[in-house]
Amino acid sequence: MKFVLAPDSFKESMTAKEVADAMEKGIKKILPNAECIKVPMADGGEGTVQSLIDATSGELVKEKVIGPLGNEIEASFGILGDGKTAVIEMASASGLHLVKKEARNPLITTTYGTGMLIKAALDKGADHILIGIGGSATNDGGAGMIQALGAKLLDKNGKDISFGGGALSNLAKIDLSCIDPRLQNLKIEVACDVNNPLVGENGASHVFGPQKGASLEMVRILDRNLDNYANVIKESLGKDIAKVPGAGAAGGLGAGLMAFLDAELKRGVDLVIQATDLEEKMKGADYVFTGEGSIDFQTICGKTPYGVAVSAKKFSIPVIAFAGKIGDNVEVLYNSAIDSIIGILPEAVDLETALKEGIKNMERSVENIVRILAL
Amino acid sequence: MKFVLAPDSFKESMTAKEVADAMEKGIKKILPNAECIKVPMADGGEGTVQSLIDATSGELVKEKVIGPLGNEIEASFGILGDGKTAVIEMASASGLHLVKKEARNPLITTTYGTGMLIKAALDKGADHILIGIGGSATNDGGAGMIQALGAKLLDKNGKDISFGGGALSNLAKIDLSCIDPRLQNLKIEVACDVNNPLVGENGASHVFGPQKGASLEMVRILDRNLDNYANVIKESLGKDIAKVPGAGAAGGLGAGLMAFLDAELKRGVDLVIQATDLEEKMKGADYVFTGEGSIDFQTICGKTPYGVAVSAKKFSIPVIAFAGKIGDNVEVLYNSAIDSIIGILPEAVDLETALKEGIKNMERSVENIVRILAL
Repeated sequence: MKFVLAPDSFKESMTAKEVADAMEKGIKKILPNAECIKVPMADGGEGTVQSLIDATSGELVKEKVIGPLGNEIEASFGILGDGKTAVIEMASASGLHLVKKEARNPLITTTYGTGMLIKAALDKGADHILIGIGGSATNDGGAGMIQALGAKLLDKNGKDISFGGGALSNLAKIDLSCIDPRLQNLKIEVACDVNNPLVGENGASHVFGPQKGASLEMVRILDRNLDNYANVIKESLGKDIAKVPGAGAAGGLGAGLMAFLDAELKRGVDLVIQATDLEEKMKGADYVFTGEGSIDFQTICGKTPYGVAVSAKKFSIPVIAFAGKIGDNVEVLYNSAIDSIIGILPEAVDLETALKEGIKNMERSVENIVRILAL
Repeated sequence: MKFVLAPDSFKESMTAKEVADAMEKGIKKILPNAECIKVPMADGGEGTVQSLIDATSGELVKEKVIGPLGNEIEASFGILGDGKTAVIEMASASGLHLVKKEARNPLITTTYGTGMLIKAALDKGADHILIGIGGSATNDGGAGMIQALGAKLLDKNGKDISFGGGALSNLAKIDLSCIDPRLQNLKIEVACDVNNPLVGENGASHVFGPQKGASLEMVRILDRNLDNYANVIKESLGKDIAKVPGAGAAGGLGAGLMAFLDAELKRGVDLVIQATDLEEKMKGADYVFTGEGSIDFQTICGKTPYGVAVSAKKFSIPVIAFAGKIGDNVEVLYNSAIDSIIGILPEAVDLETALKEGIKNMERSVENIVRILAL
């Protein structure tokens, strides 16, 4: 019997690889000769670098970069097993978790570090970069990112503007003459599950600004500044990105990546499915096991178990999903792609215990499901 | 597809019938035409009367009786669907739960009320009685029980001895001339899962006395008195029950039932399996679902899921057990009879919530397992 084990991580409990390993152990207890193809998954959010490294036998690279507030921090990214594809989580260099609550201020936070990670990936020989852009502390439209790659963002006096969404009001001209030449041959794909435009009421500043520390007044300024940014990009590059769906992701980093690096925005889980060659690995499988810490009706909005299930359905392979928490209204998942959703908890316990005993619980649950499959 | 649904109750959460109903609902959500034979189960302990009434469409009978401390209480018993079999839980009339902690004293507590329930069952036309004897407050060897049925337990002066394990020291003679004549044609079976003898270090007083409120000194007295009781029984009836396995159950009620009523002691779950005609109902079933609030390595010691599974294995029917809590070392169950054990909790919750949401959780868990069976 062939099983494909393609779970996401269980946040605060297990990495996707640990989940897949526990699944394999549970299966082999009952079917020692079963073939288990482990494909640690992710959806472009937290854990994507780790899962893709684990899934492809890649390598984690650590890199000193400029953090969101301008100070030096250590970030990391992954080089996948093919040696040519890099995977970056922008949050590693420019994430909200790097800024203490009282210091959060999208007028000054920058994506410069994310640009440095892209540069570091090029230095490692990457010609293809996958970027997960969740969890940003920034609202600079990716200005810092492209500055780190050699672009000159100038004010009306020809001087470099400073970091952050606040400085974009001064932007008058963009000079790409000194941009890193390797970007020409680089393919960039961005894991993006939001459709927000760059500016306006549904734009980056209004929708995501407040959670990054922006007051109502700051939101107004940030939105106006991104509008100026979009206008200067249009004048300088001839590209109109203000209203493009996804341009507003990660404080406008989506826009910057599209404008300057011709990045393509894709659903996160689809990028991961592609990078892991998941569908090729599914061929001939009898069952696909997936899972995530929490599964509910929102899982259908691009979460890993749903993405994996949709792929499995192309080959008519039954999909069983395991979860630490099964939320409400999961019926929508049955109706589409997931055949069964199994909770892994053995008894009433507090969350801390549940998180701590994830591996044991996963192994036991999978074992008992395989006992049924093996009947 | 035919399913037999034979769960025990989930203590403090669902009766066995409620569990079976929830299982049926979960099954029919996926397989609307499935045949579901619901057989609420029990193991002779708490809930046995209710389950057997539910399983056989029987009737609950309420009866005023003498409680363990001599005061009047309301107890109940069941008349099964055949109208001829009664089921009694001794704890209903003589249980520890009827005595406040500070009033617990096996020197004075009596099984008189249990005898009254037997009499009431005879009045209802029963010719077959099943008795569950767990949870007793008594250590009187069943003396009160047989007094209620007309036996005279006399001291050396020919006067009736009083209630309780303390008075058995005065017992000198037993006169059965006025015993209820209907007992002659009565078949009594006792659900008994312990092997303790009536007297000695492993006897009723030493092993179970302390939890009924006996001090060490009282235990010594109680054991000596049961020894006298056994001797007088031997002299009067010619029966030696002191060392018979199970005679020490329920403060020696086991001994009394064997000595006076020729009762047969059986494993509780086996009695219930027989009374519900479970094995006949299993014939032709594709799956047997069972379950209990908690399943662990001790489940093999005569608990419902194990008993049900052993029966199912006679017909090679797969058995899936559902539990609110899966304890340690359940491997022993797989090795014998249960094919798979499924936890029903959807997330980390406190026990109170888990108990409250049992029905919903059972329905959802069963649905998801049936989704797999239906693949």
